[in-house]
Amino acid sequence: MELWLVEQHTPGYRVNWKLKRTIYTEKTPYQELAIVETVDFGRALVLDGIVQVTLDDEFIYHEMITHVPLFTHPNPKDVLVIGGGDGATVREILKHPQTNVDLVEIDERVINASRQYLPEIGKALDDPRVRIVVDDGIKYVKQTDKKYDVILIDSSDPIGPATGLFSREFYQDVYRVLNDDGLMVAQTESPLFNKELLAGVYQNLSEIFPLSRVYLTCIPTYIAGFWTFSLASKKYDPLQLNPSSKDLSDMAFRYYTPAVHQAAFVLPRFVQEVLDGGKSAR
Amino acid sequence: MELWLVEQHTPGYRVNWKLKRTIYTEKTPYQELAIVETVDFGRALVLDGIVQVTLDDEFIYHEMITHVPLFTHPNPKDVLVIGGGDGATVREILKHPQTNVDLVEIDERVINASRQYLPEIGKALDDPRVRIVVDDGIKYVKQTDKKYDVILIDSSDPIGPATGLFSREFYQDVYRVLNDDGLMVAQTESPLFNKELLAGVYQNLSEIFPLSRVYLTCIPTYIAGFWTFSLASKKYDPLQLNPSSKDLSDMAFRYYTPAVHQAAFVLPRFVQEVLDGGKSAR
Repeated sequence: MELWLVEQHTPGYRVNWKLKRTIYTEKTPYQELAIVETVDFGRALVLDGIVQVTLDDEFIYHEMITHVPLFTHPNPKDVLVIGGGDGATVREILKHPQTNVDLVEIDERVINASRQYLPEIGKALDDPRVRIVVDDGIKYVKQTDKKYDVILIDSSDPIGPATGLFSREFYQDVYRVLNDDGLMVAQTESPLFNKELLAGVYQNLSEIFPLSRVYLTCIPTYIAGFWTFSLASKKYDPLQLNPSSKDLSDMAFRYYTPAVHQAAFVLPRFVQEVLDGGKSAR
Repeated sequence: MELWLVEQHTPGYRVNWKLKRTIYTEKTPYQELAIVETVDFGRALVLDGIVQVTLDDEFIYHEMITHVPLFTHPNPKDVLVIGGGDGATVREILKHPQTNVDLVEIDERVINASRQYLPEIGKALDDPRVRIVVDDGIKYVKQTDKKYDVILIDSSDPIGPATGLFSREFYQDVYRVLNDDGLMVAQTESPLFNKELLAGVYQNLSEIFPLSRVYLTCIPTYIAGFWTFSLASKKYDPLQLNPSSKDLSDMAFRYYTPAVHQAAFVLPRFVQEVLDGGKSAR
């Protein structure tokens, strides 16, 4: 039998992944969860039919969502992750020895499945520097009294449980729970296929924070490659790298370098036009 | 009836494009040619089942293969394109007013189909500054006495008619037909899925030319986004932009800027490792 996972990116564009097998499937209270073994990209976490993480290329997304903000802040200690229950972002944060992590994931089943079936990323969740809160991230940032140096919004697409994580009200709460020199990063989808979303997030962040910038990478297993992160900061500018990032030769990165950090903020014209609210490329 | 073009990228990874219709199909002496109307990316040229050009995102590939070398050379006049029979690279070259173009395309049917069905790119082929040679590019650079300032190798994948365009012998002939301050760029595939090819090309170019560099972009409609170009030069370094490129505000670019030019040469660690011949990411 040939087994293919058919992922519907848009009504007219699909990606098909040949599978060796499905390893685990579950209908959680929030979404349909699956762990599969792909032929070309290793094991993968799939939520509501959308591939979230593949072991072979997840390093690109997770290094870029993590190290850009953590090397922008000169001394990040308290880091909050919203979403990211698979553990890969936490694994990257823990490479910075001074950090402690609070992870707020709405779906405990993602955490459990990743621990059990994706230990390469899930085992970071068992580190003693990590506190796990199973809760709605929107509710958490509205209610908590704790303050953070860096907040990473490692969400799924803006449908289903993650929708509110792209709202202005949520970003205002994130601003509130950041220290006076804190900063946040959110994954903000494709600049080709989600340009209204990206433009809206950028405008909201620009109104709430003194400084906001978008940076880019290319994530093979997400729709059409190009992917944006939106960084908003109370004080530090990501284009001014902090000195500790100058020598990373001993850190086990496969994507990130200080030069890659800087280059990621250089936007092609069509992306800048999306942010400017003008006519975009598609 | 639902019509889907199924593009096989690897044995375990396929992309499906929903089509409004097929516009034209032909078995040429070299390959199976099709022009189709996609739902999400506009009209597309398909060769042997692989999507070569979609009108909605072709600007990324064609601006990057063209303007990086043409703004590296301070005064490019004679430009040779190997392949590129669709006309899009020629269209970009002609934005530089001092240029004349020789296009050497092996398959005349590609030229004709693009002129007829993709006029947005094909009409550039009728410009009086363009000379079209229907011939094998490998044979052409072996035999011609003409010299060029810039040579662009705008080939399809290294299977079928384009295989020889990735060989050391071909690059030696390209070196011969370049002026003493000339330079070349070749599209060199994905750094994830074709890393042996990329490493081999880079090594060959480094041995033949005094200077060679790889640059990156993200092309949504090619396999897994990340795409490499390999630039090899007798004199000029692409990191030293020539002064005429400083003010491009009036040129109709949707992707290229001088900052994008510089940033494209900043390579993630895993790509640098491919070039260094070390262990790579996949």
